[in-house]
Amino acid sequence: MPLLVAMIASLAATGPAAAEDGYQLWMRYPASASQPAIEVARDTPMTRAAAAEVRRGLPTGAGPVLLALARDPRLQGLRLATAKLGDEGYSVQRITIDGRTVTLITGNSDRGLLYGAFALLRHLDTGGAIDTVALTAAPAVTLRVLNHWDNLDGVVERGYAGRSLWDWWSLPDVKDPRYTDYARANASLGINGTVLNNVNAKAVSLTAPYIAKAAALADVFRPYGIRVYLSARFSAPIELGGIKTADPRDPAVAAWWKAKADEIYRAIPDFGGFLVKANSEGQPGPRDYGASHADGANMLAAAVKPHHGIIMWRAFVYAETDPDDRAKQAYTEFKPLDGKFADNVIVQVKNGAIDFQPREPFHPLFGAMPKTPLMIEFQITKEYLGFASHLAYLGPLFEEVLDADTGVRRGETVASVVDGADDRHGISGMAGVANIGDSRDWSGSTFNQANWYAFGRLAWDPTLSSQTIAREWAAQTFGQDPAVIDAVVAIMAGSREAAVDYTGPLGLAHLMATGHHYGPGPWVSELARPEWNPVYYHRADRGGIGFDRTRTGSNAVAQYAPRVAKVYADPAKTPLEELLWFHHLPWDHQLSTGRTVWGELVHRYDRGIATVVDMRRQWEALKPRIDAKRWEKAASQLAVQEREARWWRDASLAYWMSINGLALPGGSAPPAHDLAWYKAQTFPYPPGNPQ
Amino acid sequence: MPLLVAMIASLAATGPAAAEDGYQLWMRYPASASQPAIEVARDTPMTRAAAAEVRRGLPTGAGPVLLALARDPRLQGLRLATAKLGDEGYSVQRITIDGRTVTLITGNSDRGLLYGAFALLRHLDTGGAIDTVALTAAPAVTLRVLNHWDNLDGVVERGYAGRSLWDWWSLPDVKDPRYTDYARANASLGINGTVLNNVNAKAVSLTAPYIAKAAALADVFRPYGIRVYLSARFSAPIELGGIKTADPRDPAVAAWWKAKADEIYRAIPDFGGFLVKANSEGQPGPRDYGASHADGANMLAAAVKPHHGIIMWRAFVYAETDPDDRAKQAYTEFKPLDGKFADNVIVQVKNGAIDFQPREPFHPLFGAMPKTPLMIEFQITKEYLGFASHLAYLGPLFEEVLDADTGVRRGETVASVVDGADDRHGISGMAGVANIGDSRDWSGSTFNQANWYAFGRLAWDPTLSSQTIAREWAAQTFGQDPAVIDAVVAIMAGSREAAVDYTGPLGLAHLMATGHHYGPGPWVSELARPEWNPVYYHRADRGGIGFDRTRTGSNAVAQYAPRVAKVYADPAKTPLEELLWFHHLPWDHQLSTGRTVWGELVHRYDRGIATVVDMRRQWEALKPRIDAKRWEKAASQLAVQEREARWWRDASLAYWMSINGLALPGGSAPPAHDLAWYKAQTFPYPPGNPQ
Repeated sequence: MPLLVAMIASLAATGPAAAEDGYQLWMRYPASASQPAIEVARDTPMTRAAAAEVRRGLPTGAGPVLLALARDPRLQGLRLATAKLGDEGYSVQRITIDGRTVTLITGNSDRGLLYGAFALLRHLDTGGAIDTVALTAAPAVTLRVLNHWDNLDGVVERGYAGRSLWDWWSLPDVKDPRYTDYARANASLGINGTVLNNVNAKAVSLTAPYIAKAAALADVFRPYGIRVYLSARFSAPIELGGIKTADPRDPAVAAWWKAKADEIYRAIPDFGGFLVKANSEGQPGPRDYGASHADGANMLAAAVKPHHGIIMWRAFVYAETDPDDRAKQAYTEFKPLDGKFADNVIVQVKNGAIDFQPREPFHPLFGAMPKTPLMIEFQITKEYLGFASHLAYLGPLFEEVLDADTGVRRGETVASVVDGADDRHGISGMAGVANIGDSRDWSGSTFNQANWYAFGRLAWDPTLSSQTIAREWAAQTFGQDPAVIDAVVAIMAGSREAAVDYTGPLGLAHLMATGHHYGPGPWVSELARPEWNPVYYHRADRGGIGFDRTRTGSNAVAQYAPRVAKVYADPAKTPLEELLWFHHLPWDHQLSTGRTVWGELVHRYDRGIATVVDMRRQWEALKPRIDAKRWEKAASQLAVQEREARWWRDASLAYWMSINGLALPGGSAPPAHDLAWYKAQTFPYPPGNPQ
Repeated sequence: MPLLVAMIASLAATGPAAAEDGYQLWMRYPASASQPAIEVARDTPMTRAAAAEVRRGLPTGAGPVLLALARDPRLQGLRLATAKLGDEGYSVQRITIDGRTVTLITGNSDRGLLYGAFALLRHLDTGGAIDTVALTAAPAVTLRVLNHWDNLDGVVERGYAGRSLWDWWSLPDVKDPRYTDYARANASLGINGTVLNNVNAKAVSLTAPYIAKAAALADVFRPYGIRVYLSARFSAPIELGGIKTADPRDPAVAAWWKAKADEIYRAIPDFGGFLVKANSEGQPGPRDYGASHADGANMLAAAVKPHHGIIMWRAFVYAETDPDDRAKQAYTEFKPLDGKFADNVIVQVKNGAIDFQPREPFHPLFGAMPKTPLMIEFQITKEYLGFASHLAYLGPLFEEVLDADTGVRRGETVASVVDGADDRHGISGMAGVANIGDSRDWSGSTFNQANWYAFGRLAWDPTLSSQTIAREWAAQTFGQDPAVIDAVVAIMAGSREAAVDYTGPLGLAHLMATGHHYGPGPWVSELARPEWNPVYYHRADRGGIGFDRTRTGSNAVAQYAPRVAKVYADPAKTPLEELLWFHHLPWDHQLSTGRTVWGELVHRYDRGIATVVDMRRQWEALKPRIDAKRWEKAASQLAVQEREARWWRDASLAYWMSINGLALPGGSAPPAHDLAWYKAQTFPYPPGNPQ
């Protein structure tokens, strides 16, 4: 058309659904040109799920694959060593059978085949070769469980990824295919349980209509090896049963729970059991009746025991009637109960003694209750680490806690307490508070998916390094270009430390704004309970900053084993990262870094900003190598993170300076606004904060 | 592997993202093997959007396509008749230029090219041939607008498709690609405006942070010809401005709104204007100060006038202080104001005089205010027609109202009042209360997408038949298999009448349960305001049923033109579909059908159930011809619909029988439960019902 001054528009030719949008998580299987040959020696819903996954994910030419139980007579000639795989482990290897070489996925149970299938795909997606594949693994703990803090109205408490994935209204009629993809993603990591509803539970979740809804989810999850659990409201016998009390020692109460458990198991034969938050932050519990946590837990345990169910009983308690250091109260309450719990109770202990702060020392209960299985509870959702928008890879946080030396027995770490092997506990577990919602990308950002991934992988194998996990995840999520993997892993590696730096360095904690926990509020001092106020935690005054938890203070250090307590009792030995958690120190106290406390604080705030700036720079450089939608969203979120990191730093420094009257060290920029400005900020309709 | 008793599992090989899940709406373009030749004679964001769409959607071999304005000098030799296309119309035709045949998309504006591009794709997707294409159209009304009843916390009032599409929290930083797809879908229908926030508005939506968020959306929508509007809270000058009054006659109030409008237009230069719900259901308004609705609207109109903005002022008012028939109050309040509104005000009138019931006679204001542009307001979301789960195609409802003869002038219909041509109004419009949320399929079900589609198509061309629209939609949504199209259209065609039948036949209305409006509640009689109670509407007693709106009753019929009023005043002339809306009749009153009122009522309830059963049967038969995910979800929802249709029928009949003491006609099944059971049902956490 020579007459036309034609401009050929440069246009994206793909439709919206074709683009990568994060929905596929780390399971971005290549489109196979040919169907691999997959043979399944046993037809069950779970082996069908395993085989379907292999068929979806296996690259062209990687077949044939055989899925067969270790006890399959046809494998007996091969002398496979499968005893150590236990009930859930797998072995993936190349074997020759009748003159043909096949990739064998085996184990002692269908579950082993399922996990082996995912392990094979992970191996291939991270660059492993099919012809040398040799994978063997078994999980370290028996319970690998997500905790959904999902309310029945669809609001997710501390959720930053949209509404609850569970559409309670349309269940059990409508089974969203997404429920299946949720199960697939969890099974790919070895997660084998999910608590559907918030620990701040409503009794209505135990009524017949909601049991039917939970049963519909359980049916979807079952072929993927995931059991359903429910959070139970301890006062449900009053609210639903018309009984006057919820006293666990009352036979009518016990009978009500037994009947309720029977009702649930009729609908969900493999129901996992109950998670209970009792006598904590306003929730009812056995202490309301003068009974102990063990009394409460054991009564529920008896109700589910005939069905092989368990009780996960949370140790996250602190009381407004107890003037002692909040950090000490769970230990004080639970340690005397060691040995008093029924054998199908596991006590669920948060990783630290306060509440999922960006950094906390490990919880002193780990190592202190050898007669009781302790399940560690991590928070995957980033309540205190920037919601959905900040990039903060939590692998290092999980790793740091799991690797912590309890000081109780030689070589005992938090991980070895949790796996329960030394004390031969029948159950053991890790719980992660989910960061999953109905956002298209599940977790509110691509990088948040890595936290779900890291939790799952560590629950299976706590000895994995966070760096290894990051590489694995990056390869599956962004492809096998080493330049991309290296950059992504580098961005992730320093990100959690950056969040610590710009929100609360040197062991400071709990400095966030009230209620929604969005942004800084170190000045908050007027909330009803003392331990709800940031000033309770930082104790900053003209003379210094930090919470004295040594003998001259609350003596929380004494809750640790002597070898650990000795370190924490001495400011010169306490790691700088935990310094102000344990010590109140003068602003001009000299540190090993050559800086004063004040100088080091400012230095670390600035370091946090610098890291975020650098993360943005690295991400910008990846633009040509990452698909547009995912790149663009992460870039937008990194811009938010930089702005909010500066806000945290500036607001915090403005406040500290109002207390200590000190000038900023040379070279450090003054806050952008005065303190009054930061105090005046309000944020309507924050996410994750049910009213 | 002969040793193995191998079972080849039959497995779905596609990953989750590859399957159809409704996200693509009616724009399921075929994957093109080759890039069509597309030439754009003019490079603007809007022509780029138009060309991108053609490139996405054009089948292989359908090029070349030329997009050029009618005034383009190179088209002058062709003598195209484009004057009648106006500012928004398009012409699509085959032309020969320089010896080459091309498909020309032309119009008098970039917007014409955009709409022409979508018209071409619709033509092809519904089976039209490229070589005979000849499309010419211009819209009937100037404002084709969605009303989002979206709250700033993400809850959509009367929304059954998840949360609000607008993630206010992450805006303006994160621009979800879905915002673009929303704009594309609307532009494909010719929708040119969107009111972002609920008519039950919060003042905070007019603050600087929220203006910036709205501006980010406006930036995304602009290339697709969609202007952003905001619902304005009339008392905002008090809440945000610190002024003691919101009296529209107060100069400080007018000045505040003027400054606010200026602020908004600085951020959004093509901001559309405000939608206002005033003095209605608790919202503040000019009547609070003794000023009229015209005073209020005109004051706001003056604020946006310099920027060419408009005010959409809702006529949906009824007062607890007015004991008159609720159906009469809007007319009583607004008719005297005819001619008193500024020329950039349009009064927005619901299709009927009550509130979006499954069937209502057309609103008597249509035809009664010739000096005032009247915008019709339809409800696309199914507040009263079964939420997301019932299949009820609203095309026939929209069509029935638009085609209604007002009786005022010869040939005057509601549609011709709305298009404003006879009275030469400068603005005209149709508003639809959106059924859009962040559900993957946008509207909570595939068939709900058809209601969005039908609204948009009728806003462009109110003369289209609902049947034609259903065929168009079905072909684009399910493909061009005539057997599928025929069956889908058959299912849709009777679906709204079925919903009328099983919820409120013979002109009954407003019989739903309280608050959430889920399910039946004809017995409800104790709400604070009389007109909130179902018993106010059906007036059933031992002697009969129905609301007497003739001279012996409220005389609402007198609000219609005499020719129409004469019909509605006479039970023998009133269509059976509207009978009990206008008349209170004895249960044994004989109807033209040969049945009594009671007999006809039962007959229609049963007919509604039978239709739903038949819809299910037809859908089952389509299973092999529809993709699995969409088929399965609709099948699940049809099962819900059948159950709930029976519930509506049974609960209603149990109640009517408790009033009239009559037996069911022979052959009609008794209700499954007694009346007490139906009254005792409760539904926790219903969707769409903000607390």
